[in-house]
Amino acid sequence: MAGRRDWTRETLAAGVRDGDRRALARAITLVENGDPMAYGVVADLYPATGKAYAVGVTGPPGVGKSSLVSALVRLIRASDTQVGVVSVDPSSPFSHGALLGDRIRLTDHFLDPGVFIRSMGTRGHLGGLAEATLQALLVLDAAGKDIVFLETVGAGQSEVEVIGIADTVVLVLMPGSGDSVQALKAGIMEIPDVIAINKMDHPAAKTMLNEVRSILALDREREWRPPIVLTEATRGEGVAELWEKIEAHRSHLEESGQLDERRRRNLAGEVFAVASARAKAHLEHAVADDPELRRLLDEVQSRDLDPLTAVREILEKVFHIENDRS
Amino acid sequence: MAGRRDWTRETLAAGVRDGDRRALARAITLVENGDPMAYGVVADLYPATGKAYAVGVTGPPGVGKSSLVSALVRLIRASDTQVGVVSVDPSSPFSHGALLGDRIRLTDHFLDPGVFIRSMGTRGHLGGLAEATLQALLVLDAAGKDIVFLETVGAGQSEVEVIGIADTVVLVLMPGSGDSVQALKAGIMEIPDVIAINKMDHPAAKTMLNEVRSILALDREREWRPPIVLTEATRGEGVAELWEKIEAHRSHLEESGQLDERRRRNLAGEVFAVASARAKAHLEHAVADDPELRRLLDEVQSRDLDPLTAVREILEKVFHIENDRS
Repeated sequence: MAGRRDWTRETLAAGVRDGDRRALARAITLVENGDPMAYGVVADLYPATGKAYAVGVTGPPGVGKSSLVSALVRLIRASDTQVGVVSVDPSSPFSHGALLGDRIRLTDHFLDPGVFIRSMGTRGHLGGLAEATLQALLVLDAAGKDIVFLETVGAGQSEVEVIGIADTVVLVLMPGSGDSVQALKAGIMEIPDVIAINKMDHPAAKTMLNEVRSILALDREREWRPPIVLTEATRGEGVAELWEKIEAHRSHLEESGQLDERRRRNLAGEVFAVASARAKAHLEHAVADDPELRRLLDEVQSRDLDPLTAVREILEKVFHIENDRS
Repeated sequence: MAGRRDWTRETLAAGVRDGDRRALARAITLVENGDPMAYGVVADLYPATGKAYAVGVTGPPGVGKSSLVSALVRLIRASDTQVGVVSVDPSSPFSHGALLGDRIRLTDHFLDPGVFIRSMGTRGHLGGLAEATLQALLVLDAAGKDIVFLETVGAGQSEVEVIGIADTVVLVLMPGSGDSVQALKAGIMEIPDVIAINKMDHPAAKTMLNEVRSILALDREREWRPPIVLTEATRGEGVAELWEKIEAHRSHLEESGQLDERRRRNLAGEVFAVASARAKAHLEHAVADDPELRRLLDEVQSRDLDPLTAVREILEKVFHIENDRS
């Protein structure tokens, strides 16, 4: 078997396609590090992708997203489904490994050859979280994973972009998630496909259920009514029902012919998100490296140059954009 | 007096500088609409700016940010301070005008010539919220406003960019804001300069105060310890204390010489944010307008072209970026 230094683009892509666990681990590491070889490997693997079903799991920190994913993995592994988990949540126990103790029994899954779990950083990644997650998903897909969970904390544009590739989006809340409920109500947070209210033993869980239900009831136009499930991840309660609802959403998309349309829109959105992130990184490097561009910022500070003229000069110099639209 | 069609770049800039209310209203409307004339007016006004103190007010929807800003405005108007308010919060009563009833008495301020309130949309704005807010702040600054409040809902990158220009950032929470508290704890939300816990009559207000206090206590390196104030905006309780804390933060920045440094950093950050937003808008238009770029997306969908090669081709074509870094 090839050692870690011996992989080439070709052998690595072939190894991933064969479901070789070491090849998979190596490929995801290259993706995570933004290694140039990752680009070639993912390009080679791309024609073999499109079979995995991607489930996005989002929500505020501390609601138990990782515990819930862990419980879902245990449930679906009973039917020998191959599973991948990508966590891009800096507050997730997945990202901190076993240091946090065994409360969610991550080690069970780490020893299971049918499960591949990886937390993602974005060091070296010009295209940011969106690019790293997209590449990791494609690698897991090509390696034959049937279901891939994408776990991310639900706050901010970059997380929306991470979850943007998911076929089904699950929002996890808990009693006390008042801010998220208000954000749903105000239309600031997008309505997910399935909602889990975790920590169902809490006395306020039912109140939250009713609140969320009444918010969703306002939107009568929606063809798919997002189901709400009460769960207690640590005891596995409500987990089977949650998985049923995820599968029901999948069936809905497949039977109505919407899955293809959603994937087309998701892929286009991801391409755009990655391109924007790369353009931003390029701009950042250009301003850091070019003394003339840095001088513009000094002139803004001294009030000799207004900020928007500085923006125009930077864009002209870096991207050759002429400011014709305003 | 000039009618609305008679303003030129020169007369409008002069009118704003003289504190003419109609000129101010017109200039902010141009800013809001992304009108090309706004660019010239702001450029002309820029040397006269830098006197206003910008207070950012952020937090989840429904916590009472607008009521609190309204109460602060009433308080500081007693000393004849000139005040501006820019709201970029889609869930704010400021943005919905008097439709929501008189509970925060916006009309009091609308009739006060010493106060200028405007909610901002971003229609036509290539540089997004950051650009619109920056321009509005500069116009209000040049018009002689002493204090400008920037109100925004605290979720997501674009809101961070709006608040990024503020000299002092106030985070408003309320009992039930568990998600925000968890986000502070997980280090996902940036620590603000001052925290207000509004709706102090709620039985859980003290518990939240203690929770937030213990999170802040973990960060002992910080030179400025963010004070936490309990408020009840609708009755004006705690509002004087909140204003004292904002002024204490201002004194701290001024006396330690950090205000200049912070403004330099803020301005550079805003220039970068606006440039990134414009680059992104440019990319969006290019992809929408160019059949060849749209064809790339079709090829990604049919798995004939991998997404990252599509990204490279788009960036080369639109920005002439060669992908040498990865």
